[in-house]
Amino acid sequence: MAKSKVITSREENYSEWYNDIVKKAGLADHSAVKGCMVIKPYGFAIWENMKAQLDKRFKETGHQNAYFPLLIPKSFLSKEAEHVEGFAQECAVVTHYRLMNDPNGTGVVVDPSARLEEELIVRPTSETIIWNTYKKWINSYRDLPLLINQWANVVRWEMRTRLFLRTAEFLWQEGHTAHATSEEAVEETVKMLDVYAEFLEEYMAVPVIKGVKTANERFPGAIDTYTVEGLMQDGKALQCGTSHFLGQNFAKAFDVKYLGKDNKEHLVWATSWGVSTRLMGALIMMHSDDSGLVVPPKLAPIQVVIIPIPKPGDEIDAVANQVMADLRALGVSVKYDKDENRRPGFKFAEWEMKGVPVRLGIGKRDLEKGVIEVARRDTKEKSSQPIEGIAAHVAALLDEIQANLYNKAKTFRDQRITKVDTWDEFIEALNTKGGFVSAHWDGTTETELKIKEKSKATTRCIPLGNPLEDGKCVLTGKPSKQRILFAKAY
Amino acid sequence: MAKSKVITSREENYSEWYNDIVKKAGLADHSAVKGCMVIKPYGFAIWENMKAQLDKRFKETGHQNAYFPLLIPKSFLSKEAEHVEGFAQECAVVTHYRLMNDPNGTGVVVDPSARLEEELIVRPTSETIIWNTYKKWINSYRDLPLLINQWANVVRWEMRTRLFLRTAEFLWQEGHTAHATSEEAVEETVKMLDVYAEFLEEYMAVPVIKGVKTANERFPGAIDTYTVEGLMQDGKALQCGTSHFLGQNFAKAFDVKYLGKDNKEHLVWATSWGVSTRLMGALIMMHSDDSGLVVPPKLAPIQVVIIPIPKPGDEIDAVANQVMADLRALGVSVKYDKDENRRPGFKFAEWEMKGVPVRLGIGKRDLEKGVIEVARRDTKEKSSQPIEGIAAHVAALLDEIQANLYNKAKTFRDQRITKVDTWDEFIEALNTKGGFVSAHWDGTTETELKIKEKSKATTRCIPLGNPLEDGKCVLTGKPSKQRILFAKAY
Repeated sequence: MAKSKVITSREENYSEWYNDIVKKAGLADHSAVKGCMVIKPYGFAIWENMKAQLDKRFKETGHQNAYFPLLIPKSFLSKEAEHVEGFAQECAVVTHYRLMNDPNGTGVVVDPSARLEEELIVRPTSETIIWNTYKKWINSYRDLPLLINQWANVVRWEMRTRLFLRTAEFLWQEGHTAHATSEEAVEETVKMLDVYAEFLEEYMAVPVIKGVKTANERFPGAIDTYTVEGLMQDGKALQCGTSHFLGQNFAKAFDVKYLGKDNKEHLVWATSWGVSTRLMGALIMMHSDDSGLVVPPKLAPIQVVIIPIPKPGDEIDAVANQVMADLRALGVSVKYDKDENRRPGFKFAEWEMKGVPVRLGIGKRDLEKGVIEVARRDTKEKSSQPIEGIAAHVAALLDEIQANLYNKAKTFRDQRITKVDTWDEFIEALNTKGGFVSAHWDGTTETELKIKEKSKATTRCIPLGNPLEDGKCVLTGKPSKQRILFAKAY
Repeated sequence: MAKSKVITSREENYSEWYNDIVKKAGLADHSAVKGCMVIKPYGFAIWENMKAQLDKRFKETGHQNAYFPLLIPKSFLSKEAEHVEGFAQECAVVTHYRLMNDPNGTGVVVDPSARLEEELIVRPTSETIIWNTYKKWINSYRDLPLLINQWANVVRWEMRTRLFLRTAEFLWQEGHTAHATSEEAVEETVKMLDVYAEFLEEYMAVPVIKGVKTANERFPGAIDTYTVEGLMQDGKALQCGTSHFLGQNFAKAFDVKYLGKDNKEHLVWATSWGVSTRLMGALIMMHSDDSGLVVPPKLAPIQVVIIPIPKPGDEIDAVANQVMADLRALGVSVKYDKDENRRPGFKFAEWEMKGVPVRLGIGKRDLEKGVIEVARRDTKEKSSQPIEGIAAHVAALLDEIQANLYNKAKTFRDQRITKVDTWDEFIEALNTKGGFVSAHWDGTTETELKIKEKSKATTRCIPLGNPLEDGKCVLTGKPSKQRILFAKAY
């Protein structure tokens, strides 16, 4: 069919397929500013649905939203040694605060007399400005725990960008919490990882592996970085969210202490955790096909589209309006595409491209038989259903689609976790099946980097509850106490 | 009472009173970055409630949210002459994209080799980057109208800042719409002004005057700027929101044309409109008193606080839990302050400072009589109410408080619109009553600026539907066709 030609197929070029969907489904586009994207209305509507669900969970777990400055004094970054080391290479720097008319021509130039005494960094993450603020907010054990989240834009200068997956500016949330004890902070770190995992599995239909990063893959300034890792259709892993136990590193750097019940001063313990618009990339890559985007029903801005065949008319409109009212009463979002300038086939392809979970076709001949055509986006199956009870049928179908997307993704992922014991098996698994490779490793950063150099695979995580098991490193043969997951990754 | 000493009184120092409330009610604070504020959780919760209501109204009127880049190429600003003229003086400029270790010491410095070819401006507003994008999105009349809104942070470098009212970085929404005809764009401009006015009056309980700005007070690049003006307790006006008819200025600057039904190319017509965290300043100044913040019930994060007297206990807890359940069933947000470390008097003062509309005191002796003490924040009136039916009583009281705040503000404002016909009367009205002065003016920017210089009053607006009336300019005596509102303003 002609419509399958609209976008590049996955087999032909996976990367082009992804770009085609992002653009043709109206999710995002490149902007005039290198590395920065425009999130288009339909893409933003999906992100808003994600945001609403995450925000609800953050609040249910006792967090409050707040807002901290976009611009961070350069000197703040330097206060935590590993932190500055990790971010210095990708900082957008504000040096001036005024433009002036170009004395030698038209247009404007930077006014050299308006140079800032200290340069400001566009936040790449907000630990430093936030911990500098927490110093004022935290005095006694009664001020703890402090559980704050911020929804914000951040900038990390990137040369090689991909829409949603890697952009210079992206949208995200960053939680920053302060605790009286190490135990409490670790508990928070793991709790928020669970919040992410539940959201990814229940709403995004993306099965994830929860685990801990190696030292080399840790967030700059963290003691431990926890991660949720998904597996995309091309066999590459995607880090979907991270939760960091920061120990007392930022409390030390910004001198944040509290007076304990023991009447002594103690350094505060910290966590931070975040997910970003990168999740949009995961959602797109996880479920979509060669006809376009597939959106899980729980996050779809439009869950059901109704298309009149061949065009609207009194009789079809009456049925459509009734079905819409019934669906809305069940909490289902629905759109009736009455545009008379476009034919049904065109509309089918467009809503398929946008990944609307269920399409209802209302045709004159079908109405005579008292039925409506129901097409599901995930399997592309079609069936005729009695108009009587159609809303309940569709609502149940949406649940079924949500479950099917998750199960399909889980089966795909589970089939791609391969235990290997030799280097040849390691390379073989990566190059044929792709996915996660579970292998012994000697625990050194040196070997980790060599493995990356030789195979392009990185350590993804040590899964939580990983069983201890004696073995030998696949590369060096040195002793190892447990397997760890490797994969090629985004 | 001691608690009234907690903040500066309005009479003593209005400006300090405002600052005290912002800080002591936990709304916002200064940050380490000059001119940038931290919005604290309680302040942010009020802003989130505002946002939710506005966003709902934008969507009901057909707008969709999207997101455009934070950073704007310097050359884009230059494309619209008045626009660049208006914003050049207050632009934060990104010139570099990398830091490096300081070769002469510790810490980091800007890497001189990482200079951007073209400087990027942190958006002060997004007309230019958006219209550069619209060029790609708009081809035919079928692409119009394009009704987009963005929630974002913006930076306008300010030397003299005040929390919420004037900060270098602030949060806002900016609507940017594109239309086929001038009439349609003007209609949109006025429609969104109405959305703002309704929100301000119904939710913020801030009565506003809708009007048009003079040429001198127009948004840089606009043909007409519409405004909603409120009047604060100190008699100064506050511009609460603006809606701009941009004509074809940005379409010209970015060459945005559409193919009409007539098969000819036409320049597109534009509007933009915005409100910001400045509204928080209006909310605070409009209703608060010398005991602290007063939040209108419809925007209060906590509408009712329950305080056990003198402390929690089985009997009091049981009643409190029942009242909470009943209030929540009516959609009322309620908090039970069970903190045993603080006495009732301290709690009263704290929740008063935070402006919670209704306080319920549950005491042992009152329970024996089957009553609860109900205190309203706006008038500070207290009464004993039967426990039976208390939830319905409180819900009705919240409506009454909302209405009372609006009516009080409206009476205050209406008493402060003074018609004057001479310069002496003009100065007299400004200096004694404050508020709006309705006066004839000769219509020239020259006179407008002279009036400002002599009186510190600026033109606020020509009210919509202003009656025409022959008169003489209060300053120059030249002929005038209508009165216009002047005021000292924030």
